Amino acid sequence: MPETLPSTPFQPPRRPWRTRLFGRPLATADAPHQTIGKGLGLAVFASDALSSTAYATQEILLVLAAAGTAAFSYAFPIAGAIVVLLLIVTISYEQTIHAYPDGGGAYIVARDNLGQIAAQVAGAALLSDYILTVSVSVSSGAAQLASAFPALYEYRVPLAVSLVAFVTFVNLRGVKESGTIFAVPTYCFLAMMVVTLGVGFWRYAIGQLGQVVDPPPLETPRELASLSLFLILHAFSNGTTALTGVEAISNGITAFKEPRSHNAGVTLAWMSAILATLFLGITFLAGHTGAIPSEGETVISQLARTTFEGRGLAYLGVMATTTLILVMAANTAFSGFPRLSAIQAADGFLPRQLTYRGSRLVFSRGIVVLAIASALLIVAFQASVTRLIPLYAIGVFLSFTLSQAGMTLRWRRMGRSLERPPKGWRWKMALNGLGAVLTALVTMVFAVTKFQEGAWVVLLVLPAFVFAFLAIRAHYRVTAEQLSLQHYGAPPQSGRHRVILPISNVHRGTLEALRYARALSHDVTAVHVSLDPAEAERLRAKWDLWGDGVRLVVLDSPYRLLLEPLLDYITSIADERQPNETLTIVVPQFVPRRSWQNVLHAQTALFLRMALLFRRGIVVTNVPYQLTEP
Amino acid sequence: MPETLPSTPFQPPRRPWRTRLFGRPLATADAPHQTIGKGLGLAVFASDALSSTAYATQEILLVLAAAGTAAFSYAFPIAGAIVVLLLIVTISYEQTIHAYPDGGGAYIVARDNLGQIAAQVAGAALLSDYILTVSVSVSSGAAQLASAFPALYEYRVPLAVSLVAFVTFVNLRGVKESGTIFAVPTYCFLAMMVVTLGVGFWRYAIGQLGQVVDPPPLETPRELASLSLFLILHAFSNGTTALTGVEAISNGITAFKEPRSHNAGVTLAWMSAILATLFLGITFLAGHTGAIPSEGETVISQLARTTFEGRGLAYLGVMATTTLILVMAANTAFSGFPRLSAIQAADGFLPRQLTYRGSRLVFSRGIVVLAIASALLIVAFQASVTRLIPLYAIGVFLSFTLSQAGMTLRWRRMGRSLERPPKGWRWKMALNGLGAVLTALVTMVFAVTKFQEGAWVVLLVLPAFVFAFLAIRAHYRVTAEQLSLQHYGAPPQSGRHRVILPISNVHRGTLEALRYARALSHDVTAVHVSLDPAEAERLRAKWDLWGDGVRLVVLDSPYRLLLEPLLDYITSIADERQPNETLTIVVPQFVPRRSWQNVLHAQTALFLRMALLFRRGIVVTNVPYQLTEP
Repeated sequence: MPETLPSTPFQPPRRPWRTRLFGRPLATADAPHQTIGKGLGLAVFASDALSSTAYATQEILLVLAAAGTAAFSYAFPIAGAIVVLLLIVTISYEQTIHAYPDGGGAYIVARDNLGQIAAQVAGAALLSDYILTVSVSVSSGAAQLASAFPALYEYRVPLAVSLVAFVTFVNLRGVKESGTIFAVPTYCFLAMMVVTLGVGFWRYAIGQLGQVVDPPPLETPRELASLSLFLILHAFSNGTTALTGVEAISNGITAFKEPRSHNAGVTLAWMSAILATLFLGITFLAGHTGAIPSEGETVISQLARTTFEGRGLAYLGVMATTTLILVMAANTAFSGFPRLSAIQAADGFLPRQLTYRGSRLVFSRGIVVLAIASALLIVAFQASVTRLIPLYAIGVFLSFTLSQAGMTLRWRRMGRSLERPPKGWRWKMALNGLGAVLTALVTMVFAVTKFQEGAWVVLLVLPAFVFAFLAIRAHYRVTAEQLSLQHYGAPPQSGRHRVILPISNVHRGTLEALRYARALSHDVTAVHVSLDPAEAERLRAKWDLWGDGVRLVVLDSPYRLLLEPLLDYITSIADERQPNETLTIVVPQFVPRRSWQNVLHAQTALFLRMALLFRRGIVVTNVPYQLTEP
Repeated sequence: MPETLPSTPFQPPRRPWRTRLFGRPLATADAPHQTIGKGLGLAVFASDALSSTAYATQEILLVLAAAGTAAFSYAFPIAGAIVVLLLIVTISYEQTIHAYPDGGGAYIVARDNLGQIAAQVAGAALLSDYILTVSVSVSSGAAQLASAFPALYEYRVPLAVSLVAFVTFVNLRGVKESGTIFAVPTYCFLAMMVVTLGVGFWRYAIGQLGQVVDPPPLETPRELASLSLFLILHAFSNGTTALTGVEAISNGITAFKEPRSHNAGVTLAWMSAILATLFLGITFLAGHTGAIPSEGETVISQLARTTFEGRGLAYLGVMATTTLILVMAANTAFSGFPRLSAIQAADGFLPRQLTYRGSRLVFSRGIVVLAIASALLIVAFQASVTRLIPLYAIGVFLSFTLSQAGMTLRWRRMGRSLERPPKGWRWKMALNGLGAVLTALVTMVFAVTKFQEGAWVVLLVLPAFVFAFLAIRAHYRVTAEQLSLQHYGAPPQSGRHRVILPISNVHRGTLEALRYARALSHDVTAVHVSLDPAEAERLRAKWDLWGDGVRLVVLDSPYRLLLEPLLDYITSIADERQPNETLTIVVPQFVPRRSWQNVLHAQTALFLRMALLFRRGIVVTNVPYQLTEP
């Protein structure tokens, strides 16, 4: 007769400091189901993509600098090529959004159409790129602050780590994605950028756009490289970081109001158009003001102070909103990473604990893992965007490729097998196919041009991740098989129950344990390991008095070992037992009032448990004996 | 009917890598009972005392340097005063040796005559000084090596730590104190010093003793201090480090051949005489060669290369034997510290585990504690003898004082109470009394003159140690009282035995645990914490099939907590139970084949055990279910 005890009334559990820090626990039923429109949707999902304009131009220039400042004129054509790529990726994703109205991240599309291995590759690529998104965005945010206030340059690493800590904290409290608060930074950033570009182009038109005053020194290599195809492709690779974040909307379709695919699609189109405009505009003006890529001052900062002729209020506004949107971009990863890792964990490729929602309904463990990993990267790379960039975006483009390839196969399958194939499936297949081929090419260009600078790390890490995912999956599968009740038949009958009671002395704790042991079975043997014959003799006398007739075995230990003779004895008893005979070791255990006092007692119970854990059919029971100090 | 199972034949346990590293385990019966004569005794016990001549002179000069090189002429008179002090301490200890033929360290003498608090103060003083002996001796050894080979100066910290590691390793293998091998370094050092001083004095006599060539630069403060009484007392304090180690023989009387008190006494007299000669000789020659105290080159090194006119074979011999005897001095502490801490642990003032002898019959835990503590000091003080010296010797002189004071009281008690008082007890009392007063004065001079430089640390650490010893003692006493079987009466009868079986799912592991639970009692309740009603329904259906009619309770957990609802339920059951009712929680526990796989499973069993450890009368049993991977 199963009974359910609902813990009525639903009192949230008492955990004062946690509540003060993270807010009161939320019941499962509290999960929000609010949806958002296009305007808010743009604000929520665009921060990752738009924020990359804060560093993409600079990273193009940095590569071109190897061939001297004259090569900077190639930046704009390269940006143009990247925008063409953006156009194709956007159209491809429009199709995905309509095909997967419940959310079509690369992982899900790959799993549905390309099989588990491809899905795991996509998962590994996305998870590692979420980590890099946090590291790169926050490092760039710290660089923007340091550009506005050069005194901060020295503290950029602790600054960046503090920003990560802040975003982590906000996410552990649980952020309502639908909050209007999210719209503010995005639209402020957009407004400031529109003003900057507007003023800049107007000045350019009337011939009053000046050159950057007092630019940071250009760090060129001693010998100038010639402007090779490799260099241009390398610059192109760096610039495509502008495309990171474009996939965000396809993951979050369910957040949109109905008709959600339509709304999400329109939002994606708007986002790409804005991204293209900002990126081209910034690159154009950076070229015509002679901005210099530098670790000390960002290109955005140079552009803004040239456009506004000084570090006035408008300049500070640009820097503040740029920093803010970069932090918001990191925040996007903080919702993407835990969600994806929960999906992968539910599929059995990551530790199952990642699927548990914490007291604030967020996947807290995933959040903590992301925070630690990205903070470690920031420290290791000293919060330098330029040093992080070679690792970045390979994962994004790999997942683009897998997603588009999956869509291509999907169209083919649907076109061939369905009775009424979707209209124009051949064209759609061709489009997704083109997207897949182009992004695959870009991925390979990345791997080649950035290999030496650090991309090799990613090429090692991704297969390692996939391998780990598969190993975890194999373990869960074997576990499930071994625990399965299929072919289990009737459980065997309980047979004899034998109890062994190791004792070091005869005292109240021992007698408590003896009483417990006798309640379990009539077949109890007390065992004492003797280091000192005289002491064993005293113990034997005491046992005669208090042992209630229970058999006592004394094991001599000439090498003064406590655990080993006991284990030998238990093993010999275990080896002799009949089928279905259960063996329980009852160990008296002191529990001192304060935990430091544990170091004053030999932790025999603990060691015994650890040593016997792997032996079949032996149960170790500790009978705690609590000390109550006055 | 108690039976003894001797593990015949006495096979040493199998532990291959340990045996290879530390040697085969030794049976308790193998403990050596060899005794040694005076010649070997001097070699074994004198290294600590004699080695301090390697740095005592230098540390006197270092203080005097504050008043300019002219003040160096005070070094010899100060050394003379220290030798007078040595004479009195030696005579006092001669009396102790005859009074305590079984070993009369300060701890034992204080415990017998002054009570437990004084004994604990002596224990704290001695233990901390053993640690400092290792740090100072090894640092000085490293400094001697760096004097001979200046390239090593940069590596003196890792060098010193490696020397500590080496001595630790040798001691963990177990050193036969009686080994002739110990005599070699001591007598080599003596021989080399006799030659050095002989040649030095001969050259001085014939007027050919030169000045130190190319001495290290003297680091004097910008403003010269005037030669105050404080300065002289400070120099005196530093110099009395020469007396550390004099007490070693009184601890080790049992190692001597019979008549052991006589033999030990003669050895002590010889040791003191040699120590006085070396110390005065070195100080005299250092003064007349113009040796300069320096971190870069030791005074011994300057003296040796001046005496032997260059860094030839004789010079290298002096440096090698000096380094060797300093390492031997550290080795002395490695036998003293573990032995004293075992005595204190047996008295209940330190964790009892320190009384266990390891597989090589040594107190391995004490050895490891000493090694870690002294290595930390070396790293913290960058292996600088000068920076360590202010902490040193206070403990030694405090223990001298307590030991002499104890002896004084002992003479008085024996003189007054015994029917036949020992001959001349008044004289002996007066002598020990004089020793006590003088060493007490020296201790106070230490505390005052070295206070600012670091002695304050010792004045904080010693009371903290004593406090910790007393807290440990109090805990053991309360434990013993509560475990005592006095007034315990007959154990209560076993009553009802209730079993709670938390389950997360129904699988083979669960059924194994269910079978075990039913073997314990007929009153079994299975409990499931439900995060998801649909899943709970599935579990309930499965339980109907497999649960063998056992009651199932489903606890709703709206806040997605696993442990808290379970603990609440267990607590409510525990609160309702009758007297003598036992409550056992049987927890099914996965045991994966490889330990990394544990991170893939929620460790409910572990957390439950930790949470229930402090509740009276609740026993937690894990029924392990081992997975066997193919």
